[in-house]
Amino acid sequence: MSTSDLNMSPRIRRTPFTDRVEECGVSGFTVVNHMLLPKSFQNSIEEDYWHLKSNVQLWDVSCQRQVQVSGRDAEILVQKMTPRLIKNMKPGQCFYIPIIDEDAGMINDPVLLKLEKNIFWISIADSDVLLWAKGLATGLNLEVQIEEPKIYPLAIQGPKSEDLMALLFGDKIRSIKFFNFDTFEIFGKQHVIARSGYSNQDGFEIYFNGFDEGNDLWDKIWNAGYQFNISPGCPNLIDRIEAGLISYGNDFTNANNPFECNLDNFCSNENSHEFIGKDALERIKKEGIKKKIRGIVFDGDPCLSSNKTFPVLSPDQIKIGEITSATYSPRLKKNIGLSMILKEFWNDDQKVTVQTQDHKNRNGQISSLPFK
Amino acid sequence: MSTSDLNMSPRIRRTPFTDRVEECGVSGFTVVNHMLLPKSFQNSIEEDYWHLKSNVQLWDVSCQRQVQVSGRDAEILVQKMTPRLIKNMKPGQCFYIPIIDEDAGMINDPVLLKLEKNIFWISIADSDVLLWAKGLATGLNLEVQIEEPKIYPLAIQGPKSEDLMALLFGDKIRSIKFFNFDTFEIFGKQHVIARSGYSNQDGFEIYFNGFDEGNDLWDKIWNAGYQFNISPGCPNLIDRIEAGLISYGNDFTNANNPFECNLDNFCSNENSHEFIGKDALERIKKEGIKKKIRGIVFDGDPCLSSNKTFPVLSPDQIKIGEITSATYSPRLKKNIGLSMILKEFWNDDQKVTVQTQDHKNRNGQISSLPFK
Repeated sequence: MSTSDLNMSPRIRRTPFTDRVEECGVSGFTVVNHMLLPKSFQNSIEEDYWHLKSNVQLWDVSCQRQVQVSGRDAEILVQKMTPRLIKNMKPGQCFYIPIIDEDAGMINDPVLLKLEKNIFWISIADSDVLLWAKGLATGLNLEVQIEEPKIYPLAIQGPKSEDLMALLFGDKIRSIKFFNFDTFEIFGKQHVIARSGYSNQDGFEIYFNGFDEGNDLWDKIWNAGYQFNISPGCPNLIDRIEAGLISYGNDFTNANNPFECNLDNFCSNENSHEFIGKDALERIKKEGIKKKIRGIVFDGDPCLSSNKTFPVLSPDQIKIGEITSATYSPRLKKNIGLSMILKEFWNDDQKVTVQTQDHKNRNGQISSLPFK
Repeated sequence: MSTSDLNMSPRIRRTPFTDRVEECGVSGFTVVNHMLLPKSFQNSIEEDYWHLKSNVQLWDVSCQRQVQVSGRDAEILVQKMTPRLIKNMKPGQCFYIPIIDEDAGMINDPVLLKLEKNIFWISIADSDVLLWAKGLATGLNLEVQIEEPKIYPLAIQGPKSEDLMALLFGDKIRSIKFFNFDTFEIFGKQHVIARSGYSNQDGFEIYFNGFDEGNDLWDKIWNAGYQFNISPGCPNLIDRIEAGLISYGNDFTNANNPFECNLDNFCSNENSHEFIGKDALERIKKEGIKKKIRGIVFDGDPCLSSNKTFPVLSPDQIKIGEITSATYSPRLKKNIGLSMILKEFWNDDQKVTVQTQDHKNRNGQISSLPFK
């Protein structure tokens, strides 16, 4: 992985947990939503992967900023922002939603939390959804308040996370179903805790609202986690790619529509449902898409994504895609990656050539997602 | 300065010039608008500062992304986005404009370029103005196209920049006035070149539109610049702070209004001028602001901003601000910084205490901007 120092300034915001992350020996960060996201500690990605699959990890994912939409027209605005139907959503539920613009281009793929009838949190990937929501609300003259509340998600991920969380918050937490949340008291205040997270393992996310008590919360979990072999962590590239979890800005951008991102199931067909981009999305559906995200399995020495993509070629050496996220899977004992692939070539087992940054041509083939 | 590796992925976009920047020995980056901005090379910030003040430097500022607004209602939309009056703006002009939301909170402080009657570029600081503009246009149902064109600004900064640019593009370039632009042919295509840049020196910005020819443009300028002692560079913290150039996300955020940022002169008083946030801005003007950005000069060992701010205290040890950008000025032989300061304490020469990250209390005082 090509690295260089990240020069620090207040614009690249610290989180309530950055002190502890630094004390735990963080060795690399990235920047998401103008905030630090730890990306590596002292262990290799592979060591972290095996640890994540059998233990429990503490991830500072504060960069998953919340866009809070509240007020009389909150549901109207949120519904306009996504092709997924939210009218039957209940407080306590999390919905994964595509957010699209008038041309059906992806603006974000956040998790939506319904707190109350007229209060939503949009837990975002890396784009300023706050500005999109504010622009729409201003233009449409809706009665809503839109703000970024002081909420800092902290993820507890891995198969031992339920036992650890039960030790900390009682057995009630065991009954939370995947993509649901409940509230729990932390330091005298109610907090949202959801069963969710950007991993392929069991896990929880605490939506922490006490910036100044970040160290205390970290320590509380850390100390209780000792018996579960807890370690500091972060979204793991191997775990993410194996699971086919896509990343906004990496694997898809505003130039892509939801179908190209395999998000068909999150786009409602209901006629009465009005949302921004509906006409464009219907036109695209009718015409059919020309490419979509697929898995690629490929040979050769272990390799890893950097900020340069890997071109994918057809057997006739025509460029049919580019791998935007890649890693070596120690479970599959092959390299795996994600790439938009042209329609003629997107079927399973299609042979392809992958050109990695070491200028080697590697043999590969198209795979379903998640990788099996 | 606290540093850590920046982990790379396609989401943190490379520029047409990143190859050459790496070959020049870049030692640190930051991330602006989801794109790499070089922040340090092998020299110290002070060496770069002296070099910039007497020579010429080549800066990869591709991260100054353009939001292109075009179409029948382009001027209507742009005018709605800023309290600065643009109706008399002529093609070929650059305007520094505050962009504000309905509460008069700053969304960005870009440079606006008028290309033609109905084509504008908004050359942005670090926030997704594209989403704000698109949200407004969708909500207001305006007939505009809004996109991020493939334009990558490359800055030539320093007192020798005019001679270098004249050598490359002819003497016509000498007649471009500050904050104006003209078009010049590069590799067979017309390009916008403006007299502008994020420094306190003379300089130009080439709005380059040929991603794949980035190396060629860099080399062309580099080779011609040899006789002018050209070096690779980047916005210089000492030069910027001495000049009082503020930075969005660092020195002010969406929580601040234009008056708090000393942008009074960019807010029109004309009654007929309608823009988003007008009511809020008028109310704020009437009530008066409670804090604004001021300079601070302070004693002690040379210090430098990181991502932790420096609290500023009154003589009674009350917190009256926090320094968000700080450096040692070799010209003034003092530390200097920028801070929002409460009204009762914002007068010139007011004595203050600055608490730096080394836990030292330093004596300081309020100063006008730019620092003299």
